[in-house]
Amino acid sequence: MSAVADRPEASIEPMMLYMGRRAREAARELALASAEAKNAALTLMAERIESAAAKIVEANAQDLDAARVKGRDAAFLDRLAVKESGVASMAKGLREIAALPDPVGQVMARWTRPNGLEISRVRVPLGVVGIIYESRPNVTADAAGLCLKSGNAAILRSGSESFLTSLVIANVLNESLVAAGLPEAAIQLVPTVDRSAVGFMLAGLGGAIDVIVPRGGKDLVGRVQTEARLPVFAHLEGVCHVYVHGKADLEMAKKIVLNAKMRRTGVCGAAETLLVDRAAAPTHLTPLVKMLIEAGCEVRGDKATQAADPRVKPASEDDWPKEYLDAIIAAKVVDGLDEAIAHIARYGSQHTDAIVTEDRGAAEQFLARVDSAIVLHNASTQFADGGEFGMGGEIGIATGRFHARGPVGVEQLTIFKYAVRGKGQTRP
Amino acid sequence: MSAVADRPEASIEPMMLYMGRRAREAARELALASAEAKNAALTLMAERIESAAAKIVEANAQDLDAARVKGRDAAFLDRLAVKESGVASMAKGLREIAALPDPVGQVMARWTRPNGLEISRVRVPLGVVGIIYESRPNVTADAAGLCLKSGNAAILRSGSESFLTSLVIANVLNESLVAAGLPEAAIQLVPTVDRSAVGFMLAGLGGAIDVIVPRGGKDLVGRVQTEARLPVFAHLEGVCHVYVHGKADLEMAKKIVLNAKMRRTGVCGAAETLLVDRAAAPTHLTPLVKMLIEAGCEVRGDKATQAADPRVKPASEDDWPKEYLDAIIAAKVVDGLDEAIAHIARYGSQHTDAIVTEDRGAAEQFLARVDSAIVLHNASTQFADGGEFGMGGEIGIATGRFHARGPVGVEQLTIFKYAVRGKGQTRP
Repeated sequence: MSAVADRPEASIEPMMLYMGRRAREAARELALASAEAKNAALTLMAERIESAAAKIVEANAQDLDAARVKGRDAAFLDRLAVKESGVASMAKGLREIAALPDPVGQVMARWTRPNGLEISRVRVPLGVVGIIYESRPNVTADAAGLCLKSGNAAILRSGSESFLTSLVIANVLNESLVAAGLPEAAIQLVPTVDRSAVGFMLAGLGGAIDVIVPRGGKDLVGRVQTEARLPVFAHLEGVCHVYVHGKADLEMAKKIVLNAKMRRTGVCGAAETLLVDRAAAPTHLTPLVKMLIEAGCEVRGDKATQAADPRVKPASEDDWPKEYLDAIIAAKVVDGLDEAIAHIARYGSQHTDAIVTEDRGAAEQFLARVDSAIVLHNASTQFADGGEFGMGGEIGIATGRFHARGPVGVEQLTIFKYAVRGKGQTRP
Repeated sequence: MSAVADRPEASIEPMMLYMGRRAREAARELALASAEAKNAALTLMAERIESAAAKIVEANAQDLDAARVKGRDAAFLDRLAVKESGVASMAKGLREIAALPDPVGQVMARWTRPNGLEISRVRVPLGVVGIIYESRPNVTADAAGLCLKSGNAAILRSGSESFLTSLVIANVLNESLVAAGLPEAAIQLVPTVDRSAVGFMLAGLGGAIDVIVPRGGKDLVGRVQTEARLPVFAHLEGVCHVYVHGKADLEMAKKIVLNAKMRRTGVCGAAETLLVDRAAAPTHLTPLVKMLIEAGCEVRGDKATQAADPRVKPASEDDWPKEYLDAIIAAKVVDGLDEAIAHIARYGSQHTDAIVTEDRGAAEQFLARVDSAIVLHNASTQFADGGEFGMGGEIGIATGRFHARGPVGVEQLTIFKYAVRGKGQTRP
């Protein structure tokens, strides 16, 4: 028996390492590609994806059939499905990315030293980005587009259930790269659904990957965060809080809490905990709880919240750090700003937290002291999104403290180098 | 026999984890400390280090005695020695750090969305920085000062040979923190020379360390880069090139090459390879080689360089990627800009590389295409230094591609968060 037969992943490893080497070479070329060339490729991708709509939808139908046979639930099938409208929004996304300013080559800072040296800090691509995703095939186009714009090569690892759809999309992207005169290997889809491919990517493909972006459920993100031997852009969960301060306007608080919780309950920026200040509780707590329950939200509260409405269920200690991703909210009365901030520090996930108040001083304290990627005053937590931030899409939201935090857009997919221009200076 | 007796590091682990928790708590407080409070502490540290000069020098004499007994060489003892002048430069360094602008709270970008949301990207500290160093006790004050200024807690792991000196310095720093009303645990020296402490730091102390900075020789840096389970700011080596282009001014080339190689041969920004363009070789190669040899530098050259001067030794393939850190240089004639850039990409370490030329177009190509942290035109590679860049000191130089690249100063010891100010906006 050969070594390969003994150990099936042995046949995959050389292929993965080869992909890594090709990506690194493509990244070198891509780092020097003009904005025009990259934008031409992005526009071509948009056009060709539209032309390939029927083919994409057909491949997707096969993926959907297979997923149904496997007994996948409705939510899963919904994430997997790509209709004509889905194809159109991939094309639209690529055109929006083309319209963004090119981050590569931007001079972030420039100064002159007393000895006359001119120092510039210039944006350059990170290099090679590995994207590991699950059921949403549109990530193929979205993530590849953001990587291309920022001059990075992308290695895409599609989930097995969405593989056929991703493959058709990736082929279109590759053809467009070639047609635009850019290296085909700038975007590579891992051509196998064998799970060992993920392990090789998390080990970095022999130094060929610079950062990994997991896109999917908590199991995937957790595995990537635990096993990756290289940097990761990710958030494990979004336990987002809305704190209704003692000086909150009730109508504004109702509007923001309802939107933060109920606009979409399954997104990472959805509120999971409502904190109401004891000073506002007599007037605000009952109407807020009533509004939520009548909007179809289950409220799990502390004693004070239970007293405000008989329909409130008792909250346990497990509820405070919980990401429901559902029409459920934990609710608690807190003694002022300090307790609110302490609660968020203890139970939050450093993702997105908001205060509602008319007191600007309290708001500024909250914004400064809450250590989350995004902190908001008088706005819904559901704004936690690169598109809503005006960044033209995001490859993900990061709650780490390294390199990027919050929505990761094209700018955050770059690093910098220093270009120093002299006239013969030497160091004394 | 107890578990601790079986496994000596078992007694160290709980202490290290406790240090991590204290650092994390201190970091939370420090992130909110005013610039005034931090600067007062830095100034106090400078004063008290000066007052403690005799005590520091005395502790250092003990460290030096022990190192001599261990048979350490002259270079090692030189790095370890702290004289009165060394104490003065630690104090000067702390005062210079106090004088820098406070990076924390700086608004890096601010914009308003069409819906009226005001979004600010605000600098915040990274959190907790772990510094692992060897023989230079001044790192205790220098690194701690940069961390404090940038609002980060520091966990310092001194080499065993410099431990007594580092301990006296760290005590002075801790007393100054307390006197300035800042948390004592903002700066903690690992109170043991047991080597297992390093392993615990590289594992992150249960998530309590955000980034590791190794300061020392290649063995230390290599171990940290291989074993660390968290981000690292480091460079393994500086294989720096000076490329003398076909249109280089000979006098300028001589001045720059001599300085880049010989000013100090043991620093990471010292040139290790000289590339001379074939177009410049007839006029420039002989004088450059002659100058280097007469300055006491051994030249190891390819065939063309050997032909230029009989004293040139033959270079082997091993010489091209070599970091000599000594009065030795590898020299090679290359066919134009493309070959120079390809040589640097193949053998360099992405640290610092320079071109000497009067041709601005060639210079700009070199600056754009050489993928190193620092690229220079008509200036010595020995400018690779945070102080020379005007950054007011550096905690190290990074050749990685994540978060920071080149000299890591107080700005690079920060990350950001988004503060969003609204008027009741909800997401449609």
